[in-house]
Amino acid sequence: MATILAVNAGSSSVKLSVYMAEKGGSPSQVAEAQVSGLTAPPAVLKYTRGHVIVISHREVSDKVNDQRSAFAVMLDTLIDDADFPLIRRREDISIICHRIVHGGDFTKPQLIHDHTYDHLEALNDLAPLHNANSLGIIRQCCDWFPHARNVACFDSQFHATIPQHIRTYPIDQTVAQSNRLRKYGFHGLSYSFITRSVARHLNKPLHETSLIALHLGSGASACAIRGGQSWDTSMGLTPLAGLPGATRSGSVDPSLVFHYASDVGRLSPASTRDLHISRAEEILNKEAGWKALTGTTDFGKIAAAAAKSRKRRSSEEEGDEDEDTRNKRLAFDLVVDRICGFIGSYYVTLRGQVDALVFAGGIGERSDLLRAAVVDQVSCLGFRLNEEANSAGGKRENGEEEPVVWDVGKEGVTPRVLVCKTDEQFEMARLCAEDEEFW
Amino acid sequence: MATILAVNAGSSSVKLSVYMAEKGGSPSQVAEAQVSGLTAPPAVLKYTRGHVIVISHREVSDKVNDQRSAFAVMLDTLIDDADFPLIRRREDISIICHRIVHGGDFTKPQLIHDHTYDHLEALNDLAPLHNANSLGIIRQCCDWFPHARNVACFDSQFHATIPQHIRTYPIDQTVAQSNRLRKYGFHGLSYSFITRSVARHLNKPLHETSLIALHLGSGASACAIRGGQSWDTSMGLTPLAGLPGATRSGSVDPSLVFHYASDVGRLSPASTRDLHISRAEEILNKEAGWKALTGTTDFGKIAAAAAKSRKRRSSEEEGDEDEDTRNKRLAFDLVVDRICGFIGSYYVTLRGQVDALVFAGGIGERSDLLRAAVVDQVSCLGFRLNEEANSAGGKRENGEEEPVVWDVGKEGVTPRVLVCKTDEQFEMARLCAEDEEFW
Repeated sequence: MATILAVNAGSSSVKLSVYMAEKGGSPSQVAEAQVSGLTAPPAVLKYTRGHVIVISHREVSDKVNDQRSAFAVMLDTLIDDADFPLIRRREDISIICHRIVHGGDFTKPQLIHDHTYDHLEALNDLAPLHNANSLGIIRQCCDWFPHARNVACFDSQFHATIPQHIRTYPIDQTVAQSNRLRKYGFHGLSYSFITRSVARHLNKPLHETSLIALHLGSGASACAIRGGQSWDTSMGLTPLAGLPGATRSGSVDPSLVFHYASDVGRLSPASTRDLHISRAEEILNKEAGWKALTGTTDFGKIAAAAAKSRKRRSSEEEGDEDEDTRNKRLAFDLVVDRICGFIGSYYVTLRGQVDALVFAGGIGERSDLLRAAVVDQVSCLGFRLNEEANSAGGKRENGEEEPVVWDVGKEGVTPRVLVCKTDEQFEMARLCAEDEEFW
Repeated sequence: MATILAVNAGSSSVKLSVYMAEKGGSPSQVAEAQVSGLTAPPAVLKYTRGHVIVISHREVSDKVNDQRSAFAVMLDTLIDDADFPLIRRREDISIICHRIVHGGDFTKPQLIHDHTYDHLEALNDLAPLHNANSLGIIRQCCDWFPHARNVACFDSQFHATIPQHIRTYPIDQTVAQSNRLRKYGFHGLSYSFITRSVARHLNKPLHETSLIALHLGSGASACAIRGGQSWDTSMGLTPLAGLPGATRSGSVDPSLVFHYASDVGRLSPASTRDLHISRAEEILNKEAGWKALTGTTDFGKIAAAAAKSRKRRSSEEEGDEDEDTRNKRLAFDLVVDRICGFIGSYYVTLRGQVDALVFAGGIGERSDLLRAAVVDQVSCLGFRLNEEANSAGGKRENGEEEPVVWDVGKEGVTPRVLVCKTDEQFEMARLCAEDEEFW
């Protein structure tokens, strides 16, 4: 039995989950901690042990100013918890797995040693905005846990199966090869989790399961899964391509940014010695998306305003609507349009062989309004919603645990419409538990 | 009865068609001239009068070095042709219509006077690579034909009906408005022609005709037409977005170009005082596309090599294939994949209400291999090919003229699969003949 830490560092938060697992077995989670608010202080710590909420909200800004210090605070919290005997000291941890956004050509998790670490640093050029979040913690863990195995799990590795004609950009292939320019795709740990969970739910072998999966959070993407493997996905060389996100434009005319501001190729003032970000990448990743249209990153608010506006417009004369509501309706309709575009596109690339449309990610799980709008618009492909199940969400009345996958499709209809509570940390722990190399 | 000249200036060729038309009537073509090879000398003149080929191939490089001089040579040819009494001198021409790629917010053709001309020059910033081809000829015509009406017809005007949530980019809307950043769309004269011609062919009212139309040439795009109007199209702020072209990348991760070369925001050496092109726009518009993958702009060769390779691979053991064939197969599969992606996406945005899938443009008309591969891949949406009709093309055996629209779909199946011989010059002449303002 081993204790596995799974670390998931984003730009604004760090999550840490603790699992116990046998070699080759399914990990079971025993504790979870999170520090959020790194980019919008105060930084706040939350800590749960099993079903017990030990710390529901503790401001930790005095100790936390980046991903590394957030990790340190969570580690101390685990060690200091007298009721958590599993981790009394650092040596009690056997495996630490780290989510890394861009894994380049890596097709599976990598044991980190000096040589691998150099590779990871080199990948930073491809995704400076994303990989840097994890690298500080990894270096720290290599120092602090000399007896543990540190493992890098990549968000791109699930997409290694995307065929060449789909992953290739039609550009000079000499430059493409030397600069490693191709579609990589991200959210892969999530899609890997989704694929297994949905196959189990549908009672189908993994290699016969074909899905259109949507991971919709502040970063959003779509994935065509054919026979259990990634066949296409909406993100590209970087997470910028594809669907809009909270502050990300998604796919736009590649000329756009040159008409947006002058000299967008220059480094952004936010760049550091180690982190080179062009002004263009900053504009499209940080200053766009639904926040640019509405002023909020909270998609739930946008969906609610849009639904209210639609209801009002269908019941009354079209009156003057305030600008805020108009903007939210525009953002909602725009996001629905882009999502449905990918569903149509992936339905075709899967040749119509689709077992289910799966909603996942914070917005995918929680926004019944978004699911209703999307499924309505793709009903020509045969998808149908059970409206009652859709509004009810995954909640169980009798105190049962929320299921990992729940069905919101109309009875008797194929393909199904499902919601999946995805879990990237579990997926990392599972990948590590499964792989002999890490034991 | 008026004589109308329709001028279509591209980067490498200028086409000029002569029509006779009554006010409000359908124009009939009486002569056509073309100078091609502007970017790959020698420049060559071709001239036909009705069904008579007067000049099949005349090198004119001594007189021609740009779009203006190409226009001048063609005009002289018309005036000097003793057997063409319709145009004896410049004063015989009543209306000259000019195709302009980017029309900004213009929703219909514009009579050109000094004020309009300034507007046209201002549009140059949005599409420097494209609009400049026409502006020289327009200025010349305003000087040479003081008694004629010069009319600007825009490739973007057909797309003025695209709804706000589809044409909006999720970026800061203050910048978007001041810099006029939105989806405009192009190939609109072609889509306008296609929509009317196909509605007539299907015997449906225009406003009840819904199509997925593909204009596939060295520039390629797709359009969702709903009730006779543009609802979405694949090109964007500029013609770069969407499908790959001969030398154009189409949609790629907007971050890509910043990883392709350093300082891509700087002006390309090909820029002139009036024409500012960033290195990035040059890379993605001029150094990408299927030429970058295969070395040729000739899609017919690519399709033929891909088909041969597929046949060989299905009949034999997979042996070593030479690099050239592998590259062509990759380019072909990539283009088919991207086209089918848009078909799926547009099928959904049209809610499955599609009368026909229409192939147009040089490649769309001529490449039965491409049509076969595309229709096979979208068969899950109900499209079916009549293989015989598809390989036969629009040729008639009994000397009848080639039809404008021909049917290559399987009998009895809806939606239909059609080919349309599109005609941008005719569409311009028609728009001018129809509009009282220009008489």
